[in-house]
Amino acid sequence: MSISAVAREAGVSTSTVSRFLKGELRLSAETEARIREAMTATGFSLPRRRVQHLALVIPELSNPYFAQLTQAVTDAAHHRDLEVSVLVSDGLEARERRIVAKCARGGGLGIDAVVFVSMTGSGALLAEVPDDFPFVTLDERLDGELTEHRSFVGADNFEGAYQATTFLLSRGHRRIAHVAGPGHLGSARDRLRGYLRAVRDAGLEVDPQLVLEGTYSEPFGAHALSRILRLEDRPTAVFAASDVVAVGMAAAAPMHGIRIPQDLSLVGFDGIEQGSWVTPRLSTVVQPLEEIARHALDLVDAANDGAEPTAHVLPMELRIAESVAAPPSAP
Amino acid sequence: MSISAVAREAGVSTSTVSRFLKGELRLSAETEARIREAMTATGFSLPRRRVQHLALVIPELSNPYFAQLTQAVTDAAHHRDLEVSVLVSDGLEARERRIVAKCARGGGLGIDAVVFVSMTGSGALLAEVPDDFPFVTLDERLDGELTEHRSFVGADNFEGAYQATTFLLSRGHRRIAHVAGPGHLGSARDRLRGYLRAVRDAGLEVDPQLVLEGTYSEPFGAHALSRILRLEDRPTAVFAASDVVAVGMAAAAPMHGIRIPQDLSLVGFDGIEQGSWVTPRLSTVVQPLEEIARHALDLVDAANDGAEPTAHVLPMELRIAESVAAPPSAP
Repeated sequence: MSISAVAREAGVSTSTVSRFLKGELRLSAETEARIREAMTATGFSLPRRRVQHLALVIPELSNPYFAQLTQAVTDAAHHRDLEVSVLVSDGLEARERRIVAKCARGGGLGIDAVVFVSMTGSGALLAEVPDDFPFVTLDERLDGELTEHRSFVGADNFEGAYQATTFLLSRGHRRIAHVAGPGHLGSARDRLRGYLRAVRDAGLEVDPQLVLEGTYSEPFGAHALSRILRLEDRPTAVFAASDVVAVGMAAAAPMHGIRIPQDLSLVGFDGIEQGSWVTPRLSTVVQPLEEIARHALDLVDAANDGAEPTAHVLPMELRIAESVAAPPSAP
Repeated sequence: MSISAVAREAGVSTSTVSRFLKGELRLSAETEARIREAMTATGFSLPRRRVQHLALVIPELSNPYFAQLTQAVTDAAHHRDLEVSVLVSDGLEARERRIVAKCARGGGLGIDAVVFVSMTGSGALLAEVPDDFPFVTLDERLDGELTEHRSFVGADNFEGAYQATTFLLSRGHRRIAHVAGPGHLGSARDRLRGYLRAVRDAGLEVDPQLVLEGTYSEPFGAHALSRILRLEDRPTAVFAASDVVAVGMAAAAPMHGIRIPQDLSLVGFDGIEQGSWVTPRLSTVVQPLEEIARHALDLVDAANDGAEPTAHVLPMELRIAESVAAPPSAP
């Protein structure tokens, strides 16, 4: 059904209907009612408006990984002439939920799509999002049934962790510790699974003492290092589930008289730019941020057009630098 | 004039007027018109609403300084139960102007105050901001007459640069280079002036060859280092106007066979957390981010209450680390 049919039915000009639908024209209540009735009568439905202003919900910006992910999404959006409001959730479920509800329920913020990076993994907030509101999850999958109706894009955490661990094994390491992320995050569990699988595929037993779990922060890296060094049978290498954790370990190493990589090899995860600021430069598994951002925007457009939800899981790449060496020979 | 007087005049209940003014109630056009007429007749004016949703306009988030400044502002705002939309300008004047206009002219974003971090220094965009719209400039002053009506908060760049240079002089350096920021930024010019004054106050001549100007980026740091090393009479120390520039220099140093601090001492500016990730850890002048953020929010509230504009220029603190030593003795 066309705009001209609506105009005919309502007894106004085509241009009046067109400008009214674009919000460019204020009409008398009476004329507006006539146009709306004509739309119903002719079965006219509005073509979906192109997404123009996106909200990116992100846990925090102190961790360079989130800052760089945010920069990648805004770069990609600006390239498409889309504006982005970045909203910081502080990684708190109540705030995540409040922000998403405000954006998705027309809370006056002018937001017509949400790209959501969770720090809790909780999918309960999807109850706040109308079915036809474009909502894409990025980086961290949400739990619950409602997520089935939403698109996702992120990196292959399992495969990335498998690569990192296999690389350490290939350099001759047999006792490899894993400093894992928070267990309530699916991405952290995937990285842990990748580590465990690689160790087992090498025919080795997993030593539960070698797996530590904590937040993605430098202080936790420093803490994890001191715990690892207290073990009777120390590891010769560490795979950390986050670059900031690895940097925290590297920064604390001199205080324990530990040299990296001579005494302890180290691989991080994420591929933040600042990994090359550390000496020795950090080996890591790189998140394809530009590609993730591009897919996220494609998925927003697709969701806006009513397409079926899809999930893109992108491959990660190992970046080898000087933080890894062969294990020290036995004393 | 009270709400009850308006209600009496309009022939509706006080609660109806109150809820209508809060936007909680949709009324018939006729009732709405009656209330508006009653407001005029009784001389009722709305009390100013408390600021609830702030826009922070920031040049970019790849530079950790801007990411940490953004985190500081959102932390302070959340602490006051204020929401923040972060909008990235890419440091482009046209984008700065478009974003600010959209926020300040009720562009449907629900923003009731703007905290603006400029990367161009251009104050022309203030023409887009209604006089009574709360607008606070942070970090970088704007040019033009319109800025006189706006509050500002930022660090004392001149004094910080003076401290950094004086510290290098106190360690015995006599040839100190300055890698300055973009000349169109007042903050960069203030840092340059602080450097020049400190050199002159020490009774030394300024060598124009020792002053380089460029963007706040690691690649420019690497470039600046290679230019400095080509000088016939090399400096023994560098004061860089930004930590990311200093990190770029530190990262490039080994390629030139230069050791920091033995061959070249280095002081940065900003105090980003990642300055301690570099080996040797970077000496720097620290921006008081928490304090800047707190003042910015106070100034937003004051502007919202119609207070006179003020400027807060906060002191900076020198953080001494291992990137500075005495100059190498003559060969």
